[in-house]
Amino acid sequence: MALAQRLREVRRRSVALVAPLEPEDLCLQGMADASPPKWHLGHTSWFFETFVLKPAIAAQLLGDYEPAPERWGFLFNSYYDALGARHPRPERGLLSRPPAADVLAWRQRVDAALERLLTRLECNANDAICQELSALIELGLQHEQQHQELLLMDLLDGFSRNPLEPAYGEAPEQTFQAAVANPEHAWLGHPGGLIEIGHPAGGSGFHFDNEAPRHRVWLEPFALAQTLVSNAEFATFIADGGYQRPELWMSEGWAALQQRGWQRPRYWRDDAEFTLAGRRPRNPQAPVRHVSWFEADAYARWAGARLPNEAEWELLAGELPQAFGVLWQWTASSYRPYPGFVAAAGAIGEYNGKFMSSQMVLRGSAFLTPAGHERSSYRNFFAPASRWMASGVRLARDGAP
Amino acid sequence: MALAQRLREVRRRSVALVAPLEPEDLCLQGMADASPPKWHLGHTSWFFETFVLKPAIAAQLLGDYEPAPERWGFLFNSYYDALGARHPRPERGLLSRPPAADVLAWRQRVDAALERLLTRLECNANDAICQELSALIELGLQHEQQHQELLLMDLLDGFSRNPLEPAYGEAPEQTFQAAVANPEHAWLGHPGGLIEIGHPAGGSGFHFDNEAPRHRVWLEPFALAQTLVSNAEFATFIADGGYQRPELWMSEGWAALQQRGWQRPRYWRDDAEFTLAGRRPRNPQAPVRHVSWFEADAYARWAGARLPNEAEWELLAGELPQAFGVLWQWTASSYRPYPGFVAAAGAIGEYNGKFMSSQMVLRGSAFLTPAGHERSSYRNFFAPASRWMASGVRLARDGAP
Amino acid sequence: MALAQRLREVRRRSVALVAPLEPEDLCLQGMADASPPKWHLGHTSWFFETFVLKPAIAAQLLGDYEPAPERWGFLFNSYYDALGARHPRPERGLLSRPPAADVLAWRQRVDAALERLLTRLECNANDAICQELSALIELGLQHEQQHQELLLMDLLDGFSRNPLEPAYGEAPEQTFQAAVANPEHAWLGHPGGLIEIGHPAGGSGFHFDNEAPRHRVWLEPFALAQTLVSNAEFATFIADGGYQRPELWMSEGWAALQQRGWQRPRYWRDDAEFTLAGRRPRNPQAPVRHVSWFEADAYARWAGARLPNEAEWELLAGELPQAFGVLWQWTASSYRPYPGFVAAAGAIGEYNGKFMSSQMVLRGSAFLTPAGHERSSYRNFFAPASRWMASGVRLARDGAP
Amino acid sequence: MALAQRLREVRRRSVALVAPLEPEDLCLQGMADASPPKWHLGHTSWFFETFVLKPAIAAQLLGDYEPAPERWGFLFNSYYDALGARHPRPERGLLSRPPAADVLAWRQRVDAALERLLTRLECNANDAICQELSALIELGLQHEQQHQELLLMDLLDGFSRNPLEPAYGEAPEQTFQAAVANPEHAWLGHPGGLIEIGHPAGGSGFHFDNEAPRHRVWLEPFALAQTLVSNAEFATFIADGGYQRPELWMSEGWAALQQRGWQRPRYWRDDAEFTLAGRRPRNPQAPVRHVSWFEADAYARWAGARLPNEAEWELLAGELPQAFGVLWQWTASSYRPYPGFVAAAGAIGEYNGKFMSSQMVLRGSAFLTPAGHERSSYRNFFAPASRWMASGVRLARDGAP
Repeated sequence: MALAQRLREVRRRSVALVAPLEPEDLCLQGMADASPPKWHLGHTSWFFETFVLKPAIAAQLLGDYEPAPERWGFLFNSYYDALGARHPRPERGLLSRPPAADVLAWRQRVDAALERLLTRLECNANDAICQELSALIELGLQHEQQHQELLLMDLLDGFSRNPLEPAYGEAPEQTFQAAVANPEHAWLGHPGGLIEIGHPAGGSGFHFDNEAPRHRVWLEPFALAQTLVSNAEFATFIADGGYQRPELWMSEGWAALQQRGWQRPRYWRDDAEFTLAGRRPRNPQAPVRHVSWFEADAYARWAGARLPNEAEWELLAGELPQAFGVLWQWTASSYRPYPGFVAAAGAIGEYNGKFMSSQMVLRGSAFLTPAGHERSSYRNFFAPASRWMASGVRLARDGAP
Repeated sequence: MALAQRLREVRRRSVALVAPLEPEDLCLQGMADASPPKWHLGHTSWFFETFVLKPAIAAQLLGDYEPAPERWGFLFNSYYDALGARHPRPERGLLSRPPAADVLAWRQRVDAALERLLTRLECNANDAICQELSALIELGLQHEQQHQELLLMDLLDGFSRNPLEPAYGEAPEQTFQAAVANPEHAWLGHPGGLIEIGHPAGGSGFHFDNEAPRHRVWLEPFALAQTLVSNAEFATFIADGGYQRPELWMSEGWAALQQRGWQRPRYWRDDAEFTLAGRRPRNPQAPVRHVSWFEADAYARWAGARLPNEAEWELLAGELPQAFGVLWQWTASSYRPYPGFVAAAGAIGEYNGKFMSSQMVLRGSAFLTPAGHERSSYRNFFAPASRWMASGVRLARDGAP
Repeated sequence: MALAQRLREVRRRSVALVAPLEPEDLCLQGMADASPPKWHLGHTSWFFETFVLKPAIAAQLLGDYEPAPERWGFLFNSYYDALGARHPRPERGLLSRPPAADVLAWRQRVDAALERLLTRLECNANDAICQELSALIELGLQHEQQHQELLLMDLLDGFSRNPLEPAYGEAPEQTFQAAVANPEHAWLGHPGGLIEIGHPAGGSGFHFDNEAPRHRVWLEPFALAQTLVSNAEFATFIADGGYQRPELWMSEGWAALQQRGWQRPRYWRDDAEFTLAGRRPRNPQAPVRHVSWFEADAYARWAGARLPNEAEWELLAGELPQAFGVLWQWTASSYRPYPGFVAAAGAIGEYNGKFMSSQMVLRGSAFLTPAGHERSSYRNFFAPASRWMASGVRLARDGAP
Repeated sequence: MALAQRLREVRRRSVALVAPLEPEDLCLQGMADASPPKWHLGHTSWFFETFVLKPAIAAQLLGDYEPAPERWGFLFNSYYDALGARHPRPERGLLSRPPAADVLAWRQRVDAALERLLTRLECNANDAICQELSALIELGLQHEQQHQELLLMDLLDGFSRNPLEPAYGEAPEQTFQAAVANPEHAWLGHPGGLIEIGHPAGGSGFHFDNEAPRHRVWLEPFALAQTLVSNAEFATFIADGGYQRPELWMSEGWAALQQRGWQRPRYWRDDAEFTLAGRRPRNPQAPVRHVSWFEADAYARWAGARLPNEAEWELLAGELPQAFGVLWQWTASSYRPYPGFVAAAGAIGEYNGKFMSSQMVLRGSAFLTPAGHERSSYRNFFAPASRWMASGVRLARDGAP
């Protein structure tokens, strides 16, 4: 059964991700926006317990599962207001308890219950609750994959604050360096016109609610760069006064730069870069990473170009080198609902819909993204001053070549 | 000569606006986002001196003007980075000097110089500097009209913080109450399709750079409400728990609500409203005003509707009651550049272009807007948590009726 | 009658102090710790109305006074919790209303009522209410004199934030420069022993409650410097790395220095000094002024000396040059109650007693202090990081010479 | 050899203290003022390495010790400016590395080196370096004992922020409850006069520099309560509006109360108390604990009494029940140097001397204090708003009974 197999693999991977860590690392929270590894492990279990196991118990499909203590719901709820009060996000690093052993034991109980439930679910077309639970398990897996990426980028943030410059391991960095072929500097053009984007209704495969509905968009002729902006190119921008020239920046970005003292991408250190493998020489040919939208936007302006909008990116995703698996790519598009967007019902409706203000869309996927989690209609989003995610820069320009 | 006449009238109106004030009011700055009346008077003069008179002197078109002391440039520059350092905005209220008399004397010298300049400018088609100066004078007048509205809304903010509830005068409030007819609750539909918005190239009349270029947009069928949301309707929203139900709000808006203790529109006080005429009974039929984008968006969600996007609004502006002169209307559109947008060259390019992040567009105009300053392509913009401007709510919905 | 005469003179002086100001200056509040001139004028009237006129009305000694509107009590109460809620101190600069004219008219009504009251008061020894009201009028005058000094130091703070460097006038600066004789660098020694300080019970002349009771203190042999530390001496401290050497500073002071970027006394500017007469050349022989306790303490440590304690200062006050009329002198003493201290009853008890934590005592008086307001038992107090008052440094050392 | 024996016992106790903890607890930092257990373990080793082992190596008394990596000095320096830059205190909880195992291995190497050194030290009266090193070892042990208490109070703070209310263990709580006899409510009087306090020069036993020199103080007649204020008594204060009546509070304390929402002692929860043994019923007869100086001072005022000053407390310490081993007792004395105080030379001089501003003295010792660490001349000190230490309230009053 495919879902059961996926379930086992995805859940196992989360635990495998923390294997190289010291016990104290499990509680490390570098900043309010990030979460400790142990919290990610607990939260993803909470997600399954809350949105799958408890409804299954209510539907009398699962009688033999004992939920976690009630207060754990308070601790491991991320942001679902419909589910009541929750522990403040900036204080997740203070949760030295429950200890990792208890959180992992809970994971196992959740996994066992999910497997039992799956053996009982044999949905036919009319079995609404069965269909819904299957869909929620799939959502839980997608959710867990998102948290696998978050866990690694949060860890990088946390480690970056330690003067000892700890290393997590080689694997993610090898993925990144492998993906960095150096494509020709060329543009992929398109004549524009009335096109469609978004996940098609009835289309196959999973999608989040914010990727729908599929809808028409008018595009003027445009071209996208075939390659992401490299460290060497970004260094030229810096050498040309990129971080000293307000005319290149959004006013809000310039304020962020001054307040936070930005002078280069977040993890650049001298000629090196801080990575999950510790401090590493900076490869000039590798794509620049961990830049904010403000930096991406300023770079594009300096380069006489602009960032792509969502529709341009999605339209050409299939033909673009480095569209997936290297770095998320900032777009020129604010994160707003598609025409006709309807959030999912209930607490799950908070998953995406309530974040549609003051954030910018990123497209593609990154070297930290679990394999198979990418999709051309995928809409990732972050505040324009955020820099801790695996973000990069692809340029666009007006007019087909 | 039309421009000279307009110049005289617009400049005179700014001075007339401060006539009802006490001297101390001229220095009143209620919050960092607002500016004191005296600063508005100085800044608008600075704008003409900087962008018109100084270039005219450089072009040897004006030899008999003595600019203000150099440090005044530091004090009265608003946000033009290209023109050097400037006095911090939150401290404008600390500028008890130069005294009002000196600022007003400067205004007169600027006005006299502008009039002299105008008599010398007789542009023919090939006279670039003359064309440019005329355009900059027009820009200065549009700019001054914007500041006339800012002056009044900033003053309302400042007065609202005084327990004595001072009154500015009756005039603006009379304008507002006169405009408040109570149109039928009806919808104006449109079938959508490929339409155009934006100021046409070569079109007549003034426009800011951010209103261009005119461009095509695809719209799905939609309808706009013929009337703005009233105080009575908004009170129903509140009574229905509108400010207690997170599911109605953007996550960022809910955080703002909690942090700032929002429980109703900013100037509601018991059954009254604080206005430029002081505390006044709240007219249930009048449009609700001084709400943030977050409140407008939450109200629309509660009402089973949504906010209009820019294109929808502009397309129907000509047919919509209360499109102009009552309240600015929040849209669902983030403030971003139109396809093909090019900012003006030089410091003037900072006028609009550098604010295109984390703000939302408002359309129309308000009872505080100077007559004749409105335009269907006009793009006003504020941060989504701002509430001190004359903003209101017009609903939209999917599907033509 | 002496009191009536004093009343007239003291109250008149407050109004005279604001004569050189521009109207907008009356509302100038440079920081949360300071208050606008108009507020000082209103608050001192409020003090008399609250603590003298209202009790006099209650005692049927004054039937013909109409108090200010009730909300003015909210605006002009400084910190008396027993008298109910009050307008937040950091927002006093927002009170453009009531306008100065109304505040000054109120002053006149208060003055007239006080004069009427005084003609009716002819106290004999048994007339408790009469005695009490006379004492409260005297307290009101002392209070007003304190605010005359506060008004000027607050104004200096406000003007110092204006890049135009406005000048208030010559008078205070002339007082300061006149007082600056340059006494020999010599020490005045004392063998110590069991001595007494504090205002004696039954002693003549006014004193605040915090100056009593007179009490015994044991002192070891000590010496006080005959002169205040000069600008030249302080410049040597700076040149010797005084602001770069943490070992000279209290830990809390070093944190303040770093956070606020202290590199010299607050009003030093290049080779000049910002004063109430505007920017003036810095006289090397003049005493250094506007230093925090942390700076005074660090200087003393650097000089191999220490600050005097309260008892040492008071004991020798009569023999010390520059004890009064130049600058308040920081002491080594925390502001705490004398043994047996009893705060006055009622709201007046809040005058001094509730500030006895985390502040340091200053002794003497300054060039801004109204003539006749000084006293050897006077205990002035400020937080150790404050720098806007007229403070200077006198050194002390262990052992009589 | 006594010192070697003490060394072994004190060092062993630190490690024993963390035995009951989960690995993640070792990195728990509840607030900026507190430090994680692992940091305390590392810092105390750093102290010995820095102030004993490195000088011993320099003096060629110890050739076989390899110091920790240089960056560890940056991480584990607490506040010694003379020793260079250091890791910011609020971020100690981010140091998931070095892992606990490495920190403990370092401890063992330091202990072994100290033991080797001790066997080589046989001081005669003329051997200055030997005398100094022995004194520094003793200082290191006293320092380590202080950190043993800090470790427990910091842990209580950290655990108190976890909704699961974790328990550390029974031992400290048993000590507290055992010590709580309920002495009669009686006063111990003294006629005052010229007395002496402070550690005598040449006196036996260890003392910190801030306890010297011994000096004379004049005291008026006074009495101290024989018992600490109990939970029941403090509850009466609360019931009488203690936290709602500003007249009982220092102005600064009232501001703290409002800002932080104080309504009761920090660890009171309903009818229970949060302790190192988890949530426990609150014993009405037990002394109230974890109150700030502001609360202690307000309580004393409410009770018609006052807090003792340092000299009163020290003079009677030998006769007072509950002077030691129960709770530190807030005094009325600001933490300032004794007359003639001289800080130790070099970096060690930063131990106490630079904290002598804006803090209040506590006397005695607490149930968390290691046995044998108490002393009648001991001066503990904290900021008046601090509540996380084991502080209690003893009353004083004027006049001998």
